[in-house]
Amino acid sequence: MTRRVEQVDIELGERSYPILVGTGLLKDGALLQSHVRARDVLVVTNETVAPLYLQTVTASLGDRRIVPVILPDGEEHKTLESYARILDALVQARMNRDAAVVALGGGVIGDMAGFAAASYQRGIDYVQVPTTLLSQVDSSVGGKTAVNHPQAKNMIGAFYQPRCVIADTATLATLPDREYRAGIAEIVKYGLIYDAAFFDWLESNVEALSSRTDHAVMHAIKRSCEIKAAVVGVDEREHGLRAILNLGHTFGHAIETAMGYGTWLHGEAVAAGMVMAADMSTRLGWLPAADRDRSRTLLARFGLPIEAPRIGATRARELMGMDKKVLDRKLRLVLMRKLGQADIVGDYPVDALDATLQQHFG
Amino acid sequence: MTRRVEQVDIELGERSYPILVGTGLLKDGALLQSHVRARDVLVVTNETVAPLYLQTVTASLGDRRIVPVILPDGEEHKTLESYARILDALVQARMNRDAAVVALGGGVIGDMAGFAAASYQRGIDYVQVPTTLLSQVDSSVGGKTAVNHPQAKNMIGAFYQPRCVIADTATLATLPDREYRAGIAEIVKYGLIYDAAFFDWLESNVEALSSRTDHAVMHAIKRSCEIKAAVVGVDEREHGLRAILNLGHTFGHAIETAMGYGTWLHGEAVAAGMVMAADMSTRLGWLPAADRDRSRTLLARFGLPIEAPRIGATRARELMGMDKKVLDRKLRLVLMRKLGQADIVGDYPVDALDATLQQHFG
Repeated sequence: MTRRVEQVDIELGERSYPILVGTGLLKDGALLQSHVRARDVLVVTNETVAPLYLQTVTASLGDRRIVPVILPDGEEHKTLESYARILDALVQARMNRDAAVVALGGGVIGDMAGFAAASYQRGIDYVQVPTTLLSQVDSSVGGKTAVNHPQAKNMIGAFYQPRCVIADTATLATLPDREYRAGIAEIVKYGLIYDAAFFDWLESNVEALSSRTDHAVMHAIKRSCEIKAAVVGVDEREHGLRAILNLGHTFGHAIETAMGYGTWLHGEAVAAGMVMAADMSTRLGWLPAADRDRSRTLLARFGLPIEAPRIGATRARELMGMDKKVLDRKLRLVLMRKLGQADIVGDYPVDALDATLQQHFG
Repeated sequence: MTRRVEQVDIELGERSYPILVGTGLLKDGALLQSHVRARDVLVVTNETVAPLYLQTVTASLGDRRIVPVILPDGEEHKTLESYARILDALVQARMNRDAAVVALGGGVIGDMAGFAAASYQRGIDYVQVPTTLLSQVDSSVGGKTAVNHPQAKNMIGAFYQPRCVIADTATLATLPDREYRAGIAEIVKYGLIYDAAFFDWLESNVEALSSRTDHAVMHAIKRSCEIKAAVVGVDEREHGLRAILNLGHTFGHAIETAMGYGTWLHGEAVAAGMVMAADMSTRLGWLPAADRDRSRTLLARFGLPIEAPRIGATRARELMGMDKKVLDRKLRLVLMRKLGQADIVGDYPVDALDATLQQHFG
């Protein structure tokens, strides 16, 4: 059969790799075997994803030694202990430097498996098979791997590029609605920060995307990866431009923390946070009110929350790291110069921030 | 005062760094402060080294926040657990990306601290202050960091370059004689594999080196680092030439394992292993018998063991990984084409290896 496969090439010199986006890729033995060359493969997945796709991937990889590691599902398991379990499995299976680690699952699995691949024998091949919309548009690009420390998220990890990313949009069929929409929030973000034309396209494709229509989903993933690659490519180690990927995240972080992690999904908090960032950008006279409203409307049409919870401006300020200790420095925020162009700003009038916090957090 | 400081520049593009070699460097506040720029510094050391040098280093670093982590001494503590302790200390001290990790100790401390620095927030500055001769001539160059897995050494780690290495030869005054000599074995190795003129110089400086005379020790360290840099520089990720650094290691590994780790020091086992490698090289007609004898004599003059224990050729073969499973492939060995030139060889007549094993292991 002929299968339509979109490809985004991430150009990083000798660490360059392709992202393949298509429907039913996991069933495509020829494709998987041509992109996972190792004879020995450790497949890292979790208890939710394993029953759905582990057998398919194993069958498609064909005649090799496949060792699965099935971890419990959830961000609370993104720990050094889970990381050590992956390493134990690699050692016990006597995998050598030619082996590969395949991450089959969402961002948590990718982060842990990637860090294990980065550090096992100081680095073996790593292939990402993201099965959530968020991980397909976010963790496919940028090379960030990590586990959490009990006291701080993503504290321990490595910059490590995969050999290849295989994003099968068929896996999205089993994704719960809320998680799917949370992934859409990140896609909208790419339009807001970098590409007004893509934002327009999203406005025209709300129904197709919401009903998970193949061609629309594939295009959205592909364009998101391209944008992230363009932003990250000039700034692999996160010093300047890369920060614009955090549009809505500072406000969103306050929401996530105040409500208790997991109550709001990350993408949901980012959606409400982006509404706030757009609002503040309008207050500063950068973003026309009409474009602020378009941003808000688009997120709402995707079923995403656009109203922050009323946690109170004072509490929000604390959670955003603006407590007494940092009163002397201003918090740098990602704001929108216009639709499709974000910027990191430290020299805004503090009144605009106060008004924004008051308006949304009460 | 004027202090003589030798400097070796390791050229690695934007990851280039200097190795400073001198006597009394740890007391030199101006020097330490100019090379450790961070305001927040985590000093990782162990229970043996801390009482000797921690206070000196802390005082020399001057007006900054110094947080010490004092681990138990010994290779058996080079574990993921010790690594986690270093990360805990970084998190608890709320160190940020501008902080630095200083490794004050031998190779074990450097390996663990380096891996922690490599992975804390995906990489912060790392400064090595090696206090053993072995770590000054070996782990200062090459960027290898790691911890052991219960079932395999150096299984988990990263390639990560320090910002700077400060090798104070005064710290060698407190090094036990056996450990000092074990470091000398690695220095002799650099002559054997790469630099016949350096080998000549070592022959002429046995007394000066054995009595730890400053100028001789400094030269030996500097030249060793230069040679390792030349070998590693063209092969940072260990695929070809770098393997010549393992001269004597395959035979030595059999000795270390057979005797129980720690019974023979690594350098001692490598010394006896190099005698065997030289012997086999002579059997192959590459190394003149006179140069084989010079190698053996030089190691003996430094008080290093030149006789392998009689563990038996059959047992040795097993320990060298030549058991039934790999009978079809030949073990690749590092041998000497001539004095000052080693090579990785897979196509030697197996009789020569058999005779060598028989001769030395019995």
